[in-house]
Amino acid sequence: MKYIFTLFVWALSLSAQQSTTASARWQITADFYGTTRYYRLDLDQRDAAHLSGTFSGTKLTGALTGGHLSLSGKADDGGDTRFDAMLQDDALTGTLSFGDPSAPPLVVPFTAILVKPLVRATPQTHEFNPTAYYRQFSPFYKPVLAANPGDTIHTTTVDAGGSDAQNIKRIAGGNPQTGPFYIQGAQPGDTLVVHIDRLKLNRNTAGSDDQLVQSALSPDLAVKTRDNNKGVTWKLDLEHMTASPDPSSEHLKALNVPLHPMLGCIATATSPGGAPPPTGDSGSFGGNMDFNEIAEGATVYLPVVNPGALLYFGDGHALQGDGELNGNALETSMDVTVTVDLISGKRLGFPRVETEMQIIALGYSGYLDDAFKDATSNMADWLMDDYKLTPSEVAQFLGVAAHYRVTEVADRNSGVALKIDKALLKNLSAPQKSQ
Amino acid sequence: MKYIFTLFVWALSLSAQQSTTASARWQITADFYGTTRYYRLDLDQRDAAHLSGTFSGTKLTGALTGGHLSLSGKADDGGDTRFDAMLQDDALTGTLSFGDPSAPPLVVPFTAILVKPLVRATPQTHEFNPTAYYRQFSPFYKPVLAANPGDTIHTTTVDAGGSDAQNIKRIAGGNPQTGPFYIQGAQPGDTLVVHIDRLKLNRNTAGSDDQLVQSALSPDLAVKTRDNNKGVTWKLDLEHMTASPDPSSEHLKALNVPLHPMLGCIATATSPGGAPPPTGDSGSFGGNMDFNEIAEGATVYLPVVNPGALLYFGDGHALQGDGELNGNALETSMDVTVTVDLISGKRLGFPRVETEMQIIALGYSGYLDDAFKDATSNMADWLMDDYKLTPSEVAQFLGVAAHYRVTEVADRNSGVALKIDKALLKNLSAPQKSQ
Repeated sequence: MKYIFTLFVWALSLSAQQSTTASARWQITADFYGTTRYYRLDLDQRDAAHLSGTFSGTKLTGALTGGHLSLSGKADDGGDTRFDAMLQDDALTGTLSFGDPSAPPLVVPFTAILVKPLVRATPQTHEFNPTAYYRQFSPFYKPVLAANPGDTIHTTTVDAGGSDAQNIKRIAGGNPQTGPFYIQGAQPGDTLVVHIDRLKLNRNTAGSDDQLVQSALSPDLAVKTRDNNKGVTWKLDLEHMTASPDPSSEHLKALNVPLHPMLGCIATATSPGGAPPPTGDSGSFGGNMDFNEIAEGATVYLPVVNPGALLYFGDGHALQGDGELNGNALETSMDVTVTVDLISGKRLGFPRVETEMQIIALGYSGYLDDAFKDATSNMADWLMDDYKLTPSEVAQFLGVAAHYRVTEVADRNSGVALKIDKALLKNLSAPQKSQ
Repeated sequence: MKYIFTLFVWALSLSAQQSTTASARWQITADFYGTTRYYRLDLDQRDAAHLSGTFSGTKLTGALTGGHLSLSGKADDGGDTRFDAMLQDDALTGTLSFGDPSAPPLVVPFTAILVKPLVRATPQTHEFNPTAYYRQFSPFYKPVLAANPGDTIHTTTVDAGGSDAQNIKRIAGGNPQTGPFYIQGAQPGDTLVVHIDRLKLNRNTAGSDDQLVQSALSPDLAVKTRDNNKGVTWKLDLEHMTASPDPSSEHLKALNVPLHPMLGCIATATSPGGAPPPTGDSGSFGGNMDFNEIAEGATVYLPVVNPGALLYFGDGHALQGDGELNGNALETSMDVTVTVDLISGKRLGFPRVETEMQIIALGYSGYLDDAFKDATSNMADWLMDDYKLTPSEVAQFLGVAAHYRVTEVADRNSGVALKIDKALLKNLSAPQKSQ
């Protein structure tokens, strides 16, 4: 699924005498009292003196005269928003003033660069051998590699405990991540597309345990399982692609479960304006989603908040039942191959996944009831945006087409997936979804 | 799956001189200050003078002398439990004394009958044409038909709005039920087994609507769907087994969804000691579970609380996405054929379902988070009881084997289903489950 942001950019000129236009999407970097924040500004220039635009949902009007840009508008809460900047060499520099109408306006310096249409280079494959791993989905770690949209990255991940393919501890545990990967041309407000080409298991053991997480325990079951607290090693048979506990207890001796490798974590870095989430957390940025359909062949869609997107992944699971009921799945290291892409100008509220047969909207929240609402809202937006359904049609369609799964309950956030069969989507007589 | 309650009953005699035994399961009917309550009493007689037993989890000891039964024991809370009764013609009559140790004991008269081993007659098929429908899962309505374990019942259900195969209103709406069916030999403490042989659609329309229930709405989605409030008729193509909204809105014109008839409600009557739940509710008794795998070929297991079980079913859906997101599914009337059976001496905490490929434990509660725990606990008990897994093994097995689905969010209770593939159960080296 592609969404081409319709962008008409004419030559910009410092000379007010020439016919110029600032009609474009701008990526703003603001210095917010010492903290960097990114914003998106869309401008449309009717003629030399008349500009209109949108900034964080506020409609703006103004002019570009003699290289000086001046814009203002009223936010929904009545607060004034003003831009005052100079245009030079496809860049704006100036001040942005906004805030609550009952308080003095916040005035912050900013620079803005023109978001250029995505130009696709010949796809390349990058080999990356990580030497460090990170335990925050942070925008502050230096990118390890820059890839273009269309490029493929082959790398490795350590297990959730920080051990590699040789079972050698490389870093303390807690879902250490490989990355961040910088995706050229990714701007705040875009969607990062990550196609999972290959998840190759690279050792014959995985670690788990025999407890059930608190979110799965009724009082009755808590009493019955009160003595569970044991690490369990699973042997991975990479030839037959099955797993068995080893050593095994009495009744699990013949248990041989098909492997289904997946990534527990996949994320874009969060805003530099807030504290980066630890790699046990999940949210709009993706993160520790622990969804067992984020596997080979799946495509994951994530919102871009930082320039370059800053893609992280890790926490490979050789196999995981729904919910990650043990707190750990079958935690192991992996060789990972992904191909990245961008949907310019489209930003998601929550991650989405596409598999061969289904589209899947995810929701993550502290309670399953709220995650259920988030997943439903995410899918409703998908159907309204890409399949042009009205709200009434969304309700009728979901009423017969929705499949809900619980993805995980092991962490601070629980997750719900809303899945729709692509076979049914084909029957929607929609204006074809944007390419 | 069958569970034969091992029952050795020797002839009972009023004469203390003869060799007698009261070793048996007894079904108690107590007159609890004007309200009937059912209990189960299990007795084991070592010799004429020494009886031991279990009543509501309390261990009892006593004697049967000269037709006079005397039993007592202390409950976990320190309260005294006493039985004082006369045995005559396989029946006990007397008083039962129990209660909180800090208050005067409750003394209630009771009668008890001997629970006889299940004797299977030649299976029969019953035709039942309902003339009344009920909107409570009540133990107080007169059974419409008595069937033996193994018997098949063919009948009809009206839709959730009370209309029949001719779309003629037969009763006010609110999931009116067909039944109650009395199952011979069913005793409190048993499990009723209902195999759904056939759900035959008998008209070519179903009613639904275009709203989304509150439990599915994030604030954002609530705003977008605020104008939804429209009834929708779906046309059922019984030849091709598909459904389409009729008339259809613009983008749903080509929508043609495969039909999958299911029973929204299936239940046993609840205890006469409490108010009967309305037919929109769900719980340990089953009820308005709205689970779209309660369909042809599925077997539903329900706890028996009343003598005869008192089976109700109705609320047929031609098709329903997970969650019953519209509050109504594709509501329609049906021809229903079920075969009933009993598992003597086994009582479930929550309903269970078995399909060709999976076993499914259900949980229903006000919040999905609690329903999730209930479903997990239900499955853990299933694995411990029938597959002899230890609590540690249950956790290891569920960690790799669990599939969770959200069944419904439309009613007072939300539901979660925990599903396990039978292919994996075959690999559990358990002492074979009880036949």
